[in-house]
Amino acid sequence: MENIAVAEKANDTIEQVITPEELLNHWQGHRRLTRRVIEAFPEDKLFNYSIGGMRPFSAMAQELTNMAVAGVRGVVTDKWAPVSELGHHSGKDTANTKAGILQQWDKATAEIDEWWPKIPAGRFQEKMLAFGQWEMETYAIILYWIDNEIHHRAQGYVYLRSLGIEPPYFWER
Amino acid sequence: MENIAVAEKANDTIEQVITPEELLNHWQGHRRLTRRVIEAFPEDKLFNYSIGGMRPFSAMAQELTNMAVAGVRGVVTDKWAPVSELGHHSGKDTANTKAGILQQWDKATAEIDEWWPKIPAGRFQEKMLAFGQWEMETYAIILYWIDNEIHHRAQGYVYLRSLGIEPPYFWER
Repeated sequence: MENIAVAEKANDTIEQVITPEELLNHWQGHRRLTRRVIEAFPEDKLFNYSIGGMRPFSAMAQELTNMAVAGVRGVVTDKWAPVSELGHHSGKDTANTKAGILQQWDKATAEIDEWWPKIPAGRFQEKMLAFGQWEMETYAIILYWIDNEIHHRAQGYVYLRSLGIEPPYFWER
Repeated sequence: MENIAVAEKANDTIEQVITPEELLNHWQGHRRLTRRVIEAFPEDKLFNYSIGGMRPFSAMAQELTNMAVAGVRGVVTDKWAPVSELGHHSGKDTANTKAGILQQWDKATAEIDEWWPKIPAGRFQEKMLAFGQWEMETYAIILYWIDNEIHHRAQGYVYLRSLGIEPPYFWER
C-alpha cells in the first residue's frame, strides 16, 4: 500500500507541461521559419540592410547559429564556449553569401538533432553557468536562446516589410 | 516490489522540463519587458508610428492583452472567445492613450495570475480547439501566444530604434 502511495505521488506531483522531444520540435519549428526568413532576403540586403543602426540580418542569423550549437553542446556536456565566440565577428565559420549562411544553418540543425537526445536526465531543472557567464536553470537557458531567435527574426520581418517583401507566415513552422 | 517498480517508472518516464509555475513566471517576465517597451514609446508614436505598412505598437499591445486574457481563460474553462474579439478593432476596451494601454496591461497581468493556478491537472498535454479554431496541445497554444508577444515586441524594438530611442534590454525581465 505504501508503495502504491509513492507511485501515485510521483505521478501526482509532476505536472508535465512539455516533454523534451516536444521542446526540440518546438525549437526546430521556429528554426525552419527563421530559415525561410533568411531565404526571403535578397542576397545584398541580407548583408547590408539595416534600420536604426541595428545589425544586418546575416549577422543576427550567424549569432543564432553559433548560440544554438554552442548552447546544445553546453547543455549536454557542461562545457561552454565563451561568449566571445557567439557573435558573428567571432571569426569562426563566417559566411558572406546567403548560400553560406543557409549551409551553416542546416549544419546546426543536424547538430541540434544529434545532441538533443543526449541531454542527461534531470538536466532541464538543474542550474548551469551558461556560456560560463549566466547562472540559471537549464530550461531557462534553452528558452532564452529560442526567445532570442524569435526576437531577432521579428526584426528581420520588419526589414523585409520595409523593403516591400512579404515575410513568411509566423505560424508556418 | 512490483509497486516500487511502478514508482520508479513513474519518476523515470516523466522528465520534467518546466513546471507550470515556472512557465507562468517566464511569461510574466516577458510581459514585464513588453510593458517597458510600451512605456518607452512617446505618446503619439505609440498610436501613429509604423514601418512598412505594419500596425502601430498600440494595436499590437492591445492584441497581446486580448489574446492573453482570452487565452488563459480558455485554457482553464475550455470556453474560447472567438478570434474576432482578439484584434485591437474588436471594440472591447479599446484604449487611445498610453495610460489606458498600460491600465489594460496591468489588469491582464492580474487576471493571468488569478486564472493560471486554476489550470486543470493534465491540461498542458491535452489537445484543445484554441479560440474555437486551432487544434493543438495546450502547451503549444500557450507557447504560441508567448512567442507572438516576443515577435511583436521585437517589432516595437525596431520602431523605437528607428526613432532614435534605446529600447530596454532584452534580458531584463
